[in-house]
Amino acid sequence: MQHSYPQSLQNLINRLAKLPGVGPKSAQRLAFFLLKTKEEDALALAEAIEAARENVQPCTICGYFSDTPICRICSDSTRDASLLCVVEEARDVVSLEKTRSFNGYYHVLGGAISPMEGIGPEKLNVPSLLERLNKGEIKEVVMATNPNVEGEATSLYLARLIRPLGIKVTRIAHGVPVGGDLEYTDEATLSFAFLGRKEI
Amino acid sequence: MQHSYPQSLQNLINRLAKLPGVGPKSAQRLAFFLLKTKEEDALALAEAIEAARENVQPCTICGYFSDTPICRICSDSTRDASLLCVVEEARDVVSLEKTRSFNGYYHVLGGAISPMEGIGPEKLNVPSLLERLNKGEIKEVVMATNPNVEGEATSLYLARLIRPLGIKVTRIAHGVPVGGDLEYTDEATLSFAFLGRKEI
Repeated sequence: MQHSYPQSLQNLINRLAKLPGVGPKSAQRLAFFLLKTKEEDALALAEAIEAARENVQPCTICGYFSDTPICRICSDSTRDASLLCVVEEARDVVSLEKTRSFNGYYHVLGGAISPMEGIGPEKLNVPSLLERLNKGEIKEVVMATNPNVEGEATSLYLARLIRPLGIKVTRIAHGVPVGGDLEYTDEATLSFAFLGRKEI
Repeated sequence: MQHSYPQSLQNLINRLAKLPGVGPKSAQRLAFFLLKTKEEDALALAEAIEAARENVQPCTICGYFSDTPICRICSDSTRDASLLCVVEEARDVVSLEKTRSFNGYYHVLGGAISPMEGIGPEKLNVPSLLERLNKGEIKEVVMATNPNVEGEATSLYLARLIRPLGIKVTRIAHGVPVGGDLEYTDEATLSFAFLGRKEI
């Protein structure tokens, strides 16, 4: 006896409710908005999703978001090629770039080691990281994985792999709040974290 | 010197930020989610938006959401044809139907009279309302416009138009919180509002 919507509307509500932070009531509200707003605006959102999925791919070098095979950061030859910053997700590069505290290049792992979720190093972009390091140009690797259990474990695991190559491995300082997410850390805190980085 | 995203990603963030209740930071988060989630899920959302815009149209009789020319409510011959409930938006029908306090039919105005925003009665579905009333079957019109200035004004304006036709005009009771929105009122309050309705 639950009130029923037309099927296309119900389907739209269900799809919106799968977005992070969007509950059933918000999904309904967003769906009504998408039906009521100008048709061109609603369709432009649909097209933007499709275009982003079609055009935005991980950079073939670092894994950051890019609409070209090599991203803007990797294509920027004015950066310091002796510095490499390792992060879990492409979105973390955005947070770090906003601080303007780092002028090297990045490497996106695509996650953190998590035995609980069955994510071992073999599921992350570790081989491509070692390949980059083996070219000999990089002198320091800054571990900017998240300051939580998985991020610390990933950082320690990679440090043990990398140190034998004669490369300095540093960790961003504990200016970042323990247990938090890089994505939600303010830029000043991230700046301090970069400046206070220590060798592992 | 603002950090720049690939264009398709920036465009997706901009489009998401136009949704109600979605600020720049949430838009960024939703965009990253849509890039990271399974491609079929992201594309299914895009398709759901397109399908809803293509299939869901206002009912030709009452203006409620429908994927057929006449909606499920207007097609339901077991309802009381002597009762008509007038609401501002199609989403208000959803809220009212959930209360199960009303067994008549609906009429969606498509907004409220608002001189400040230049919305006069001529921009609302008033002619189609009068046409329905002139058929003589409706004995009572329940005004369920929002309990705010525009909703009250709309209700009084329509009451003055309808009363000369010999039809009783009632207003949902002030169980609904003054200054609020029907969409956010809980079902119990809306039930009281229906039961306590008074002639205008």
